Amino acid sequence: MYLLPLFLGGFFYAQNFKEDSTQFRKISDEILTKGKGYEDLRELTKNIGNRLSGSANYEKATQWALQKLKDAGADKVWLQPVMVNVWTRGKESLQVKIGNGKWQNIKMLSLGNSEGTQGKDLKGHLILVKSIEDFQKLPAEVIKDKIVFFNYPFKQEFIVTGQAYGDAGKYRRITASEVAKKGGKAVIIRSLTSNFDDVPHTGSLKYEDGIAKIPAVAIGAETAEELEKALLKRQLVEVVLNSNCGMNGQKLTHSVIGEITGNKDNSVIVVGGHLDSWDVGEGAHDDGAGIVQSIEVLRSFKNLNIKNNHTIRVVCFANEENGLSGGRTYLENVKKSGEPHLFALESDSGGFTPRGFSVGMNAEKAQSMKSWEKLFNPYGIYEFTGNYGGADITPLRELNVPVSNFSTDSQRYFDIHHTPEDTFEKVNRRELLLGAAVMTQLIYMVDQNW
Amino acid sequence: MYLLPLFLGGFFYAQNFKEDSTQFRKISDEILTKGKGYEDLRELTKNIGNRLSGSANYEKATQWALQKLKDAGADKVWLQPVMVNVWTRGKESLQVKIGNGKWQNIKMLSLGNSEGTQGKDLKGHLILVKSIEDFQKLPAEVIKDKIVFFNYPFKQEFIVTGQAYGDAGKYRRITASEVAKKGGKAVIIRSLTSNFDDVPHTGSLKYEDGIAKIPAVAIGAETAEELEKALLKRQLVEVVLNSNCGMNGQKLTHSVIGEITGNKDNSVIVVGGHLDSWDVGEGAHDDGAGIVQSIEVLRSFKNLNIKNNHTIRVVCFANEENGLSGGRTYLENVKKSGEPHLFALESDSGGFTPRGFSVGMNAEKAQSMKSWEKLFNPYGIYEFTGNYGGADITPLRELNVPVSNFSTDSQRYFDIHHTPEDTFEKVNRRELLLGAAVMTQLIYMVDQNW
Repeated sequence: MYLLPLFLGGFFYAQNFKEDSTQFRKISDEILTKGKGYEDLRELTKNIGNRLSGSANYEKATQWALQKLKDAGADKVWLQPVMVNVWTRGKESLQVKIGNGKWQNIKMLSLGNSEGTQGKDLKGHLILVKSIEDFQKLPAEVIKDKIVFFNYPFKQEFIVTGQAYGDAGKYRRITASEVAKKGGKAVIIRSLTSNFDDVPHTGSLKYEDGIAKIPAVAIGAETAEELEKALLKRQLVEVVLNSNCGMNGQKLTHSVIGEITGNKDNSVIVVGGHLDSWDVGEGAHDDGAGIVQSIEVLRSFKNLNIKNNHTIRVVCFANEENGLSGGRTYLENVKKSGEPHLFALESDSGGFTPRGFSVGMNAEKAQSMKSWEKLFNPYGIYEFTGNYGGADITPLRELNVPVSNFSTDSQRYFDIHHTPEDTFEKVNRRELLLGAAVMTQLIYMVDQNW
Repeated sequence: MYLLPLFLGGFFYAQNFKEDSTQFRKISDEILTKGKGYEDLRELTKNIGNRLSGSANYEKATQWALQKLKDAGADKVWLQPVMVNVWTRGKESLQVKIGNGKWQNIKMLSLGNSEGTQGKDLKGHLILVKSIEDFQKLPAEVIKDKIVFFNYPFKQEFIVTGQAYGDAGKYRRITASEVAKKGGKAVIIRSLTSNFDDVPHTGSLKYEDGIAKIPAVAIGAETAEELEKALLKRQLVEVVLNSNCGMNGQKLTHSVIGEITGNKDNSVIVVGGHLDSWDVGEGAHDDGAGIVQSIEVLRSFKNLNIKNNHTIRVVCFANEENGLSGGRTYLENVKKSGEPHLFALESDSGGFTPRGFSVGMNAEKAQSMKSWEKLFNPYGIYEFTGNYGGADITPLRELNVPVSNFSTDSQRYFDIHHTPEDTFEKVNRRELLLGAAVMTQLIYMVDQNW
């Protein structure tokens, strides 16, 4: 009496597994042998280049993405208006003088959204702090009029470098306002980098409301070590900072959207990345990779003639790097339209070898996704953990949309993240395409089963 | 009655798991924060460079490795004599003329162990073959006096690129003798490469006894495509090959060995890679990585003051690339000495992110190793599959020694394998050191449990 249904269940499961395995293989073969994502990325990075929200390059990128989505076979493409706060870098320089030494120019990048010095020299003495905890213990009179140097190293012990980035992140995000509260003039941080070179990494800071907005810049690890050495020897370090960075009003720009219509219903499955990038390098891993992979998902559904039950929608979000207006605006539009959303997947961890998918969803959905693990194992995917869903799709959680972050091999990402070194040459063709393949496989499973 | 032993078993297991986890973390912290492997690799690749067996550079490398093993804390180091057949490249060139076009020089590398043309021009017409199966169908009169071009592409569909390498490998290894049997003059193969650039990849061929030894060379994928296009259009392609490559007698050289003595017994655990490399590039991934990782295993046992039960022996094998004399000689020495060997681990899949360990051993031992999987998961290791044990340690299977190949993320390896591009710059510090960490963890578990 009990055996029959169990047996049939097992039979159906095995049958599904075989069919799904075959489909997984078709998807993988299609993308690894005919995928266009790598050539798409070459175009985006080499013909357009970096593309901060508000820049002329970003506008070029929106037109490029619109065309690519059409070429990939989208049934419908459109631009979604997004209002962004515009930040521009302008000319910037940092000079230091150690003890009786000579003035030297050091490599630096202002943090994104940082105010500058309006082209005037900001001068001051440098004070070394190793951690925020140490900083909190220092009285305001020690900080007043000083330029504070946070030399908090990126912790190499973390196996997943994203955790080291999380650990060190506050030094970039909050130190400017903390220092301003005690009367400091400016902040210099050691870059959030897993590397030991001298490349500075930018990235956004956030000023607290009602607190003076002092400039904040990042320097490379080598210079950071050198400055620390001098300061520990009690040498006087004088600094001159000059920067034309700052906010430049608002601008209406766009996220770019393309979709293939569902054959069964109009509920939406989102797959996306962010189209903007920092204003240095080429935004290749961050997040050109996520954009071309998402387009590849749509293209391979069309090329393989997969009949999608639900609408599969590629969203190329605006303004992830310095405002998140793209993701928030998308949520507002969903609220207005009332379109049901089944699932959202983001690729914004670089175009590296796939490792897994996070499960930012309720236990039942998470269990369903994990039950597909054996299908993914042959593609090197073993990890279905974590709750984080990607910056642009996180707002959708307000509507209880299940979200997932495509997670990749993290070892090389923070060597080049937010730097001039984030270029096309750093992306490996097979790693990028394999990512697109497993993303397509996941979207396929959600479309068939949810 | 049944519950107590089960419960205790569970308790002991949990207790061991906790202790082993702690030790795994210590090993990982040690290597990721204080590991010297990356700087060691810089020395080996930049101060010495490529090092084919028989070359002066290889001799330098043996002295370097001996010193490094001493510095790492080996109780005992020595050179193990190995007789190798010496192959040298010499000047080489390949010119082609398509139809009525101009003669052009194309990028090429003779295959390792290939005979050359003694500096004379070897001229002939090119004939295209897509596969060995197609070749077998062609009568000898079609092949006679021709230069045969095998344009068999590396299959992108394989997820693990080593499988694509295995699939295409025979085109490098056996085609020279096959073509000679039908009276052909020379062989050109499309390089065994996952890339679409024009970099030729070398690697060894094997001549059959009693068959004429005709020259064989590799060309890059781009040129291969171009030649195929011309030949499919029935254009005449004339070729002039000139090469001074060839075998140059025998030479006595050495594998380099260092060990820390066992505290409990003298049974031996081997960990190693090969010290030789091809004569182009810097032999960074292949196999400088395996050498510095193996030294790192020994160094971290010493630095962490782990009391090893058994002798842990690092072997830097000679002559993996074009003869395997190092591995075979090691086996002969073990046979003579009668030293019991518990286990051998080889790292020769490049210094990329760890993925797993193969289990070239009996079912009981394989089961034991797999039972450690959960300890390895936090370090990104999920795969305990495959039977292959690494070329240098495979001979030990004759004595039933359990062998394991450290397997890595394979996506980038065959872009640069056996080419001038296999340089230090292609190795990522964290990926390399994480590999050393998991190798040390595995050696620790074997030492404690077997």
